[in-house]
Amino acid sequence: MTQDKPQSQPESATAGDDGRNERHRSRMVRKKAVIDDKIAQAQRDCGVIVITTGNGKGKSSSGFGMVVRAMGHGMKTGVVQFIKGAIPTGEEKFLRRFPDECEFHVMGEGYTWETQDRTRDIAKAEAAWEQARRMLRDPSFGLVLFDELNIALKLGYLDVNTVVADLQARPEMQHVVITGRGAPQALIDAANTVTDMTPVKHAFAEGIRAQAGVEM
Amino acid sequence: MTQDKPQSQPESATAGDDGRNERHRSRMVRKKAVIDDKIAQAQRDCGVIVITTGNGKGKSSSGFGMVVRAMGHGMKTGVVQFIKGAIPTGEEKFLRRFPDECEFHVMGEGYTWETQDRTRDIAKAEAAWEQARRMLRDPSFGLVLFDELNIALKLGYLDVNTVVADLQARPEMQHVVITGRGAPQALIDAANTVTDMTPVKHAFAEGIRAQAGVEM
Repeated sequence: MTQDKPQSQPESATAGDDGRNERHRSRMVRKKAVIDDKIAQAQRDCGVIVITTGNGKGKSSSGFGMVVRAMGHGMKTGVVQFIKGAIPTGEEKFLRRFPDECEFHVMGEGYTWETQDRTRDIAKAEAAWEQARRMLRDPSFGLVLFDELNIALKLGYLDVNTVVADLQARPEMQHVVITGRGAPQALIDAANTVTDMTPVKHAFAEGIRAQAGVEM
Repeated sequence: MTQDKPQSQPESATAGDDGRNERHRSRMVRKKAVIDDKIAQAQRDCGVIVITTGNGKGKSSSGFGMVVRAMGHGMKTGVVQFIKGAIPTGEEKFLRRFPDECEFHVMGEGYTWETQDRTRDIAKAEAAWEQARRMLRDPSFGLVLFDELNIALKLGYLDVNTVVADLQARPEMQHVVITGRGAPQALIDAANTVTDMTPVKHAFAEGIRAQAGVEM
């Protein structure tokens, strides 16, 4: 870009920026007005149901990020892990250091193709939901995470109507995060925030196995 | 479903399941063989670059989930927050409790429409990248998170080629997580795992504002 344009405007005082900074500032002033207006229209506080689903990486890790975020605000948190459980994960090792801040339950015994026992998987899922329901009836929990619950619902191990009814009966300010592939529509309908984690690429396809700290 | 089918097979011994459990077991045995084969083809260990991008909720929280996962495995972690920084977040409050396990730098001053000063934003982004580069040259960091870096790249505050070169020169076993909307293609090409967080619905549209523990 040539620099021979007159720079007489005081707003474009920074030498050589060709007025770009001032145009940026004007655009941001307008953008702030639009965003502030949107924010003014969203002033309600309440407990929310957040679902992370889809085939991409980031569903459970996002859930654990919200758990530590809540702990940072002094909230008591609860975790119930459905399905998973065969291998101790980094998140479990870490969060078990704070038993007063995070109640952590690993209720699964591994993926369905590892357990190969549907009756036992169902019994485990039902026991996990009993723990989850207890948290949903206890207003001392500020945020609870039901990790891989979507899979238990998708496989028909739990009744989605029962799960939705228990979620809807929870304390008004309690947040619930639910993760896992294949979230059923009835759960999506009951949720406030839903993200589909869409895979663009994955290290596994390059021959790189699950890495501690990243996938587990 | 009628229950009058003969139940003489020892594999379907559970009364009333109509052979469903045994079909499940057979399917899972086949599935395990397929999955075990895929796992056998992915045995390489190396540091990975993970990108979470897109407009949906879960990008930064996923990054923080990986930070605590890594801490659970005893890794030293580092966080550099680009853009964000005006408001202390739950993740910052929490992770600052562990200065020996997580080095946390908040380098931004808020969203572009709040700062309204492009020259200052660029200087801040460059200072943040200096911190990031220092971590990328230090093999004592097992996992580093560059939160909202994608936005700084998208806005042209940092040169993507410089960033990619610094990433590629890092220690072999170091993991890097990069978050934010609008990840540039050159960064996606350099990454191992990329997820697009696709919004299905968001509480904000219902008039619910950002909730502590969930969004901040």
